[in-house]
Amino acid sequence: MMLTDMVKRLMESGSVGIITHIQPDGDALGSASALGLALERLGKKVVIFKNDKPPKKYSFLPGAHLVVDCKGPANRVETLAVLDCADLDRLGDGIQHYEKAGTVLNIDHHISNTMFGNMNMVDTNAAATGELVYQMIKLMGIELNVDIAECIYTAIAADTGCFKYDNTTSVTHGIAGELISIGVESNRICSQIFSLRTLQQTKMLGRAIDSIKTYHCGRTAIMTVTANVMQETGCGQEDLEGIVEFARDIEGVEVAALLRETDGGDIKVGLRSKEYADTAAIAAVFGGGGHRKASGCTIHAPMEKAVTQLIEEIRKSYG
Amino acid sequence: MMLTDMVKRLMESGSVGIITHIQPDGDALGSASALGLALERLGKKVVIFKNDKPPKKYSFLPGAHLVVDCKGPANRVETLAVLDCADLDRLGDGIQHYEKAGTVLNIDHHISNTMFGNMNMVDTNAAATGELVYQMIKLMGIELNVDIAECIYTAIAADTGCFKYDNTTSVTHGIAGELISIGVESNRICSQIFSLRTLQQTKMLGRAIDSIKTYHCGRTAIMTVTANVMQETGCGQEDLEGIVEFARDIEGVEVAALLRETDGGDIKVGLRSKEYADTAAIAAVFGGGGHRKASGCTIHAPMEKAVTQLIEEIRKSYG
Repeated sequence: MMLTDMVKRLMESGSVGIITHIQPDGDALGSASALGLALERLGKKVVIFKNDKPPKKYSFLPGAHLVVDCKGPANRVETLAVLDCADLDRLGDGIQHYEKAGTVLNIDHHISNTMFGNMNMVDTNAAATGELVYQMIKLMGIELNVDIAECIYTAIAADTGCFKYDNTTSVTHGIAGELISIGVESNRICSQIFSLRTLQQTKMLGRAIDSIKTYHCGRTAIMTVTANVMQETGCGQEDLEGIVEFARDIEGVEVAALLRETDGGDIKVGLRSKEYADTAAIAAVFGGGGHRKASGCTIHAPMEKAVTQLIEEIRKSYG
Repeated sequence: MMLTDMVKRLMESGSVGIITHIQPDGDALGSASALGLALERLGKKVVIFKNDKPPKKYSFLPGAHLVVDCKGPANRVETLAVLDCADLDRLGDGIQHYEKAGTVLNIDHHISNTMFGNMNMVDTNAAATGELVYQMIKLMGIELNVDIAECIYTAIAADTGCFKYDNTTSVTHGIAGELISIGVESNRICSQIFSLRTLQQTKMLGRAIDSIKTYHCGRTAIMTVTANVMQETGCGQEDLEGIVEFARDIEGVEVAALLRETDGGDIKVGLRSKEYADTAAIAAVFGGGGHRKASGCTIHAPMEKAVTQLIEEIRKSYG
């Protein structure tokens, strides 16, 4: 219903801006490109405001010709579509376009969304914002081409772990099936998003796995990465993404943690649980936070001491 | 058409045997259990002949009460459904049941299938034999329950890499969507099949990654695992499954190989390519074979010499 109203508004607009959240992920980038390419086909003047540098692995996405830096001058757009963005803080420098825009459409699937738009469509049942954009494009009466299909597929695959996570619904699979029949190469895109690693990232993964120690009869697995190892492998913080999951995925492990020594000597901690443990509560002890199954904190202590403190808190969490 | 005939035959049979190939995978096991549970609901006398010990990770599959060892006495079944099995050699000890059976239904999706059944349904467009079993159950008029849905989901997820591989079609996604709406927990099953590793397997992964060396300007990545490392980590051959993919997935790598030293001193080689290289041709030089993107061979030489010989053949393959 609301989506129909939003589509009507977009169809009536001569100029449309599209923006997503800072540190954009696959859903943000794919959704923005899909909507941008669709509106371009309707003859609209479209710009996608780029918020932060997107991860390199998404550089294959079509629609790059529509992208401008969001730090550039804020010319008024008739309608601004804000995608996959839970609140205005997440707009970063993009806030200037929000302030100047005519009508703001807030299209998202996060339960924490603050309803900051003139029109709001927040569907927490959607596995990805890409699902909502798919519906909007259908409502526009546009036939999907391979470029648009690839963008939507990327958005959905990224936010569902390639249809693996619990947010995947029959709607998700239905859309994915249609996109594949249009010509999307699922294997290329999923590999690009989830398996591709640089040689440095691969070496880092090996080092992190080598460091695994288990505690509490195998229920806890701890990975440690020293500043030295970071230097030796030539990796930065962003290269550690997803590595802690190799500790969590070990049979019998309930809580896994990756402790990384920063150049300043602090220890950054990423926590994951498999089924029942509340890692947000563990992180909170050290002033951090997050979700039940994924959280983080910083411990101001040398590595060895940080490990000791952390495993003690993890032990307590088993009750 | 043919599938309807097969279903008719099954509906008319009082006793049905189900068998799959040796070294059964998720598609074989999931398909067998799904068909077995469906026929049980129709009041048939059903046995699933177990061929080899199934991988432990599939022990969650429902339908265990129908399973008997295929080495046991071969009582004649009216109809034997042979699932996911390209030829009779792949039946192993199960051949005795094939020889005694009334009508043999050959239900498969491998292009190399030798059409050994009295009735044959070989659909190479099916991503998994599980898709064909799904259709058969629909034709039987049985409403899917969670147990049957879980078996079919497992079959399909296993053979498509959780909807990632190129064999995934809109039909695949359509079926998966229905199964999820019935109550299949996608995340639990996909994690169980693809991410869960024992501590030993995880340690082995770390050691194998540490051993990676690249050649040919980063186009070739070689992993080596000595007999010593196998012993130290307490791993067997089956624990190396999938590890070579961490070498193939490195950015810029086209050909990856994992060389494992056997207790006898020979070197077992697993080869993978990313896009264009024909690894079957490389393996053939050493008397091995396989597919273009995945093959294997044995090199009768010490590790160092085997690596040298192999990278020379890989270099030639780049032309």
